[in-house]
Formats: sequence, C-alpha cells, structure tokens
Amino acid sequence: MGMNENLSKPLDRLSSEISDDMAAVNALIRERMASRHAPRIPEVTAHLVEAGGKRLRPMLVLAAARLCGYHGEAHLLLAAAVEFIHTATLLHDDVVDESQQRRGRPTANLLWDNKSSVLVGDYLFARSFQLMADTGNMEVMRILANASATIAEGEVLQLTAAQDVTTTEDIYIQIVRGKTAALFSAATEAGAVVANVDATVQQALFDYGDALGIAFQIVDDLLDYGGSAEVIGKNVGDDFRERKLTLPVIKAIAAADADELAFWTRTIGKGQQDDGDLETALDILHRRGALDAARADAIAWAERAKTALQATPDHPLRAILSDLSDFVVSRIS
Amino acid sequence: MGMNENLSKPLDRLSSEISDDMAAVNALIRERMASRHAPRIPEVTAHLVEAGGKRLRPMLVLAAARLCGYHGEAHLLLAAAVEFIHTATLLHDDVVDESQQRRGRPTANLLWDNKSSVLVGDYLFARSFQLMADTGNMEVMRILANASATIAEGEVLQLTAAQDVTTTEDIYIQIVRGKTAALFSAATEAGAVVANVDATVQQALFDYGDALGIAFQIVDDLLDYGGSAEVIGKNVGDDFRERKLTLPVIKAIAAADADELAFWTRTIGKGQQDDGDLETALDILHRRGALDAARADAIAWAERAKTALQATPDHPLRAILSDLSDFVVSRIS
Repeated sequence: MGMNENLSKPLDRLSSEISDDMAAVNALIRERMASRHAPRIPEVTAHLVEAGGKRLRPMLVLAAARLCGYHGEAHLLLAAAVEFIHTATLLHDDVVDESQQRRGRPTANLLWDNKSSVLVGDYLFARSFQLMADTGNMEVMRILANASATIAEGEVLQLTAAQDVTTTEDIYIQIVRGKTAALFSAATEAGAVVANVDATVQQALFDYGDALGIAFQIVDDLLDYGGSAEVIGKNVGDDFRERKLTLPVIKAIAAADADELAFWTRTIGKGQQDDGDLETALDILHRRGALDAARADAIAWAERAKTALQATPDHPLRAILSDLSDFVVSRIS
Repeated sequence: MGMNENLSKPLDRLSSEISDDMAAVNALIRERMASRHAPRIPEVTAHLVEAGGKRLRPMLVLAAARLCGYHGEAHLLLAAAVEFIHTATLLHDDVVDESQQRRGRPTANLLWDNKSSVLVGDYLFARSFQLMADTGNMEVMRILANASATIAEGEVLQLTAAQDVTTTEDIYIQIVRGKTAALFSAATEAGAVVANVDATVQQALFDYGDALGIAFQIVDDLLDYGGSAEVIGKNVGDDFRERKLTLPVIKAIAAADADELAFWTRTIGKGQQDDGDLETALDILHRRGALDAARADAIAWAERAKTALQATPDHPLRAILSDLSDFVVSRIS
C-alpha cells in the first residue's frame, strides 16, 4: 500500500496484538473454503482470499471480542464468517461492475468466468452461515444476517442511483452503510455480543464500526479524485468514468451553477464524456470546495468512531482501535 | 402444466390440507421481500415469486411439520425461508445459464439485467437467514445452511462437469442432490426438526425429500428428450443443445459403440452440432434403452421416497406425500 510507515503502525499493532487468533482464523478459512466435490471452489476462493487483503474485517471481530474480555473460541468462527461474506460480496461485485482488476491482479470473473464468480460467491455465503451456526449463538446469526441483507440492499440502491445526478448525501450514506459500513459494524457488534457484554458496550462497538466504515468509504471515494502521492493502486477518475455519484460529486452538484450542472448532467447523467472532462471535473471539485468538504466529513466520521470507543472497556486494544480510526483518514489528510 | 387432472390430485390435496398455513406463508413472503430503500428488489422478486410457481418446497416444510404433529408457527418462517433460497438460486441460475425464459415468461436477467439478478438473489438469500434466525432454532439453521452450501457446490460441479463425456452416474447424482434434492430434503428434515420428533423420523423425512428430489430431477431431465404428449412448457432438446450430461446421455455413453462415442464426443463434448443431430441423439437414446433405464431409475427413487415414509407418523398427510411421489414420476410413465 506504499503508506507512510509511521501511519501504518496502528494496523501493525492491531495485527500483532491478535496474531495468535488471526493465525487460527486463517487456518479456519483455508479449511472451510475447501469443497469435497468441486475443486473449482477453492481455486477461485484462494485467488481472492490469498491475494494479500488486509483482513481488516476479521481483525475487527477479534479485536472487539478481546477488548470485551472474551476468552472463548466462537470469535474465530465469526471472524472467518465475516471474511467469507466479504469475499462473496467481492466476487459478486466484480461480476456486477464487470471489473477486470482487484488488488492489482486480474479478477476471478476474468480468470474463470462470471458463472464461477456467482456460484462460488453463493458457496462462501452459505459457508459463512455454517460457521455462524457452529457458534451456537443466535444473536450473532441475526446480526450477520441483517448485515448481509443491508449489503445487498445497498448494492441494489447503488445500482439504481448510479448516473442519477439528483442523488442526495442521505442516499449516499445509505449506500455506503450497505456496501461498506454494515459489515464493519456487524463485525465489531458481533465481537461484543459473543463476549456477552452489556447493551451499552455492544451499541458502542456497533457505532465504532459504523462510523469507521463510513469514514473508510468516503476516503476511498476521495482517493478516486486524487489523494496523496504515496497512495498507489487506484486510478484517478475511475468513479468519474463509471458515472458513480460519490460524495465529492454530490457536494459539487449541490453547489453547481447552471453551466456546472449541465456539465455533470452530460458527463455523469448521460455518460457523454470527452477528453479533458476529468480535468474539468477536478477543477470544479476544487473550486467548489467539494473535496475539502468531503475530507472534513470523513474526519468527522473518524472522530465519531473514536468517541464511540469511550464507552468500551479500558484495554490496550481500545487505543489501537482509536488510532486505527485516525489511520483510515490519514491517507487524505 | 397441462397435466392429467387425475394425476395432479395429490398436489391439490396437499395444497388444500395445508391451505391456511400456505396463506400465512404467502403473506410472510410478500412482507419479507419488501425493501425500505431499494424498490428494485420487490419488483424483481415479485416477477419470479408471483409467476405462479407450485411452491412445492414450502409446502414440503409445512407438510412435514404438520405430519409430525407440530402446532407452533416456526414452520411458516422456515417455509418462507426455503422459498427465498429457491428464488435466489433461480435468479442466479438464470444468470449462469444465460436463460431468457422461465415458466413461459422472460427471465429477470433479461427484463432488468444480470446485476439486478445477482444482487436481488443475494438479498433474498440474506432474508432467508433472517427468517431462520427468527425461528430461534439453531438446528434448522444448520440444516438450511448446509443445504445452501450443497446447492452452490452442486451448481459449480455441474459447471465443471458440463460438456465432459466422462461424467459418471455418481457425479450426476451428486449434481442432482445439489441442484434439486438438497433443498427438498432440507425442507422435509427442517419440518421434522422444528416439530421436535425423534431422530428416526427426522431421518425418514430427510430420506423422503432426498429421494423425491432425485426422482423429480431425473423426470425433468427425461422430459427434455420427450416425455408424454400432454406435457408442455419444455422444449425437447434444450439440454442436448446446451451440452448437459444428463442421466439418459450418461447411460447411452456408457453403452456406446465407437461410432456412437464419436457422435457424443462431437455433439456434447465439442459442441459441434448440425441439423439432424438431435434426431440422431434421440434415436441412439431409444436404441440403447437409455430413456427406459433412466425412467426405471426415477421410478425406483420415487419408490424409495414412499418407503421412507413408513417410519413417519400415521397421518392423512402421509398418504398424500406418498401419492405425491407417484405423481412426480407420473409425467413419464
């Protein structure tokens, strides 16, 4: 990720604090992604699972459970379940978005086909529910089933809101909750629930995951229009070319004069894009302060995440999760 | 379906025996397929759910639970969950198979797009797990999660076995268990489990659903090469054109001489099909007794389903389920 070493420390500290748990989760993931009958399944899954993702979501489950003083093993099953849900949604997203690359490698839909991506995604989704059933905890089952519904709902909403220049910030936040924050908040809430802490702490960890996830996605959307020079792996302007209504554009449209509105309607609404349009878009985004305003929103969500942690137990992981929130927005500050 | 009136009676009798329950399930399905944020979801779902399917799978849940003397309401949630899983797999199947028609109407992937079918399928799958969580019964959760994994595994296996002329009857049965029987057996087993009957009866109802599902799929595959004249809605030769290794073809290949093997390798293995090939295929299938042998297998599975019922409680529904098994194979006898 080419990040500043100092800034990436919270992720390293998190990783090191829960390294034994994470090793167990990785073993569980490898074991459960197998298929007795269909070797295509672990092939496709391994391509994605072993592509060097940060495993942020399972780490959030483990950290939340440990922070809440949990000493059992159900959090390992939940962490693997959350990673399977995430992997399933990535497989399906790449089919829906007709993506060709993810994490710098060709996507599964390109290497195999859309069929395999759809069906292996379904398999992993089913596997995640088997893992949850193995915890014997109906409440976490409910949390993750709800999150899965919110994810799919957010994706459908994104599909119908795409290219619609009347999309509001409220709809954007709903979409972001679906595509990103729902699994973050389910991860941290499920970690708390399995540790059987009181409702205030469960809610605090839900709020932390929710705000962290929203900050994370706003940052991702901002980086699509630039960001710091050290950040690599994203092509500036992908969202513009795909006519996605992300926060900077929504803010710029809200502040647009007649000429600018015509520009956004032509390029995003109608998809009539010419050479130089991306540069014009960037120019308008800067001029209208849309990038700064989106950056301020991301930082505010990160602050909200940190504030939520105040209601959680005093534990070394609390400081790490707090720093993780700063880290998420450090890529744009 | 244009069936002989007399033969369709078991389905009518089943329907009438559990009509109150089924009305409650239909109301639940309509309620739970809604989405607060994404109206595309109920649009797509309604297209499929209200297309006049027989609702055989939810009926099996209700019948099994009632047969086992159940008087609660959890079976209604399970029946709706099973129908949602079924609908989700239909949506994804039509994307995978690039289908244009289902039940005589254009498919959702054609009316909307593949993206909507993938994501709405995911939503329904998540909704089905929410319904299961509402039962508070972890054992049925496990049964349906296992069935969902088996379904996806069977579909992937079918994908990789397609066009492979060395596919055996064992692999065919595995595929059929995945694509059809797993949800039948999960439906009947879950109905028994929610009724809290002893393990012998649970197993008997699992076995009934499994054998019924296999008989059902063999019949479906046979009808693709003909069947009785009254049956409408299937085009003869679809599986042949799509190069599917179904039971009649597997049996014909096992008995093939060198010329016939060359024919199957060319038409199914390599997909080089000319005018008249379907007629040749039908001729070989008849000559080798492959259709008669597959028909005998279907009838044997239907008998196995009836035998399994002997270990279940004496109840009017038992006779109806037994007749249902005869009905399933009546389309080919």
